[in-house]
Amino acid sequence: MKEKITAFAPATVANVACGFDIMGFAITGSGDKVSVEFSDDNDLSQIVQVGKYAGLIPSQRDKNTAGVAIDHYLKVIGKENVKLKIYLEKNMPLGSGMGSSASSAVAAVVAVNHLFGEPLNKRDLIPFAMEGERIACGAAHADNAAPSLLGGFILIRDYSPLDIIQVPVSDDLQCVVLHPDIELKTSDSRKVLNRQLTIKDAITQSANAAGFMIGLLQNDLGLISRSMQDVIAEPQRGKLIPGFELLKKTAIEAGALGCSISGSGPAIFAICANKETVLKVEQKMKATMTSIGVNSTTYISPVNAPGAHII
Amino acid sequence: MKEKITAFAPATVANVACGFDIMGFAITGSGDKVSVEFSDDNDLSQIVQVGKYAGLIPSQRDKNTAGVAIDHYLKVIGKENVKLKIYLEKNMPLGSGMGSSASSAVAAVVAVNHLFGEPLNKRDLIPFAMEGERIACGAAHADNAAPSLLGGFILIRDYSPLDIIQVPVSDDLQCVVLHPDIELKTSDSRKVLNRQLTIKDAITQSANAAGFMIGLLQNDLGLISRSMQDVIAEPQRGKLIPGFELLKKTAIEAGALGCSISGSGPAIFAICANKETVLKVEQKMKATMTSIGVNSTTYISPVNAPGAHII
Repeated sequence: MKEKITAFAPATVANVACGFDIMGFAITGSGDKVSVEFSDDNDLSQIVQVGKYAGLIPSQRDKNTAGVAIDHYLKVIGKENVKLKIYLEKNMPLGSGMGSSASSAVAAVVAVNHLFGEPLNKRDLIPFAMEGERIACGAAHADNAAPSLLGGFILIRDYSPLDIIQVPVSDDLQCVVLHPDIELKTSDSRKVLNRQLTIKDAITQSANAAGFMIGLLQNDLGLISRSMQDVIAEPQRGKLIPGFELLKKTAIEAGALGCSISGSGPAIFAICANKETVLKVEQKMKATMTSIGVNSTTYISPVNAPGAHII
Repeated sequence: MKEKITAFAPATVANVACGFDIMGFAITGSGDKVSVEFSDDNDLSQIVQVGKYAGLIPSQRDKNTAGVAIDHYLKVIGKENVKLKIYLEKNMPLGSGMGSSASSAVAAVVAVNHLFGEPLNKRDLIPFAMEGERIACGAAHADNAAPSLLGGFILIRDYSPLDIIQVPVSDDLQCVVLHPDIELKTSDSRKVLNRQLTIKDAITQSANAAGFMIGLLQNDLGLISRSMQDVIAEPQRGKLIPGFELLKKTAIEAGALGCSISGSGPAIFAICANKETVLKVEQKMKATMTSIGVNSTTYISPVNAPGAHII
């Protein structure tokens, strides 16, 4: 059998303002691809990397987010002795805040699951993608992996056991993600977080998270906008991103419902009511970033974007 | 003019597990009444108290939750010189955790607003009721006052400015509130709260608050149940209520979706999917409380109960 299966998994916006560590959504326009095929090669310990960002993560299978995800999957379905060759098309930059490692891990498990005739459904694949996240980030988070896999807007209510909620959102809602051409290590973003919070801040965060969910479910744009406030991560992490406050102000003034840091940054996202507004917001955000001497790449996507799929 | 206007305002469940400080709902079966009338009496500084719990709060108008709420209202509508006589029918016990002071304050402002031909709508009355809360509790909370006034299930997303969200809930959902015959001071309940939280607990609380809202809006009973967890207040406050853990276990085993402390206690509430279950849960909870030697009063109500109204 020489069939080669390729899956695409999209980039994601995680944290989503008041949804720190618990919310994320898929976006179109960026993502990684993973191909798998049965192979007779003697040495399958290396992953073949191609794409714009190939070679920046380890190719060694047991250190690569795609390889680790696949090997966990194979073990659980009892196929650990099957010889597979893995190809990773790394299109997403690392440390962008757009779920680069999750994208690789998710594409990997979707491809390998398809290769075996889809014995598991998409939701069942999340834990394997999370294992890929663990090797890349040190923690088995699901807030990028779950939306990349399932698409749409996701709430991670709990990890033990995993409780992944698909939040229905209006197809009108649009998002722009601006990725500034600067480096920001996830470890640095983690370091600046306060490990202790006041009870007041915890209450504020939970009130906004609750309001945000009602806003999305009822498509109440005012409530979405008022709820998009993060008192846990943004106050600290915003300082690590040059021009963040100015960019946020620009986005809101141009009509965005809300603007915050995507994942642990440096990417910044803004949610807008419709396509017309998102184009205007994108233009203003990009111009603002240019004006402070930072190049950037932008992505425009519906908030309700498709998840990983076979191509 | 000798018209006497009487308003009823219901008891409320506040905090609502993961909704610590931000959620509340009205219940039927308990509440206070306030009457107002124009008067020529020379001394109107005392409020006439009647009812089962009359005389347990100050009758002096500027120290009474109903009097303070009314006087704030009169000032704002420019009627501070109008002479009003106030009657309070205090049916609710103090320090019950069922919003006793809010009930008095809300009934007061609804009555006085009606007396003047309802120049303000119900939502506009919330700040006056909150001033009544301030004199009773030391803090101008809205999580009892808003649901008592508006009815139904309420999210307080923010206080500055006040952002009160009415959360539509299924008419099937029922609640039992058990008020044990013990005294628990709000100040003691406040004292045991940790003022600092771990970031992990704050994330857990916000995830459950978000999940709870989705569960209520989609009438997803499983999600409602899984989300009804409080990591901020219940772990500390539960210890102040004799038999709390046992009672909670009893309620869940009897079929309740969730069970937690109402307000700052000692009242305990359980939410159930329907009338049949709530009756069973009430019976088991009451029997459990009796078995540990504590008398109790129980109330059964839809979660979506009416708010204050003129009678």
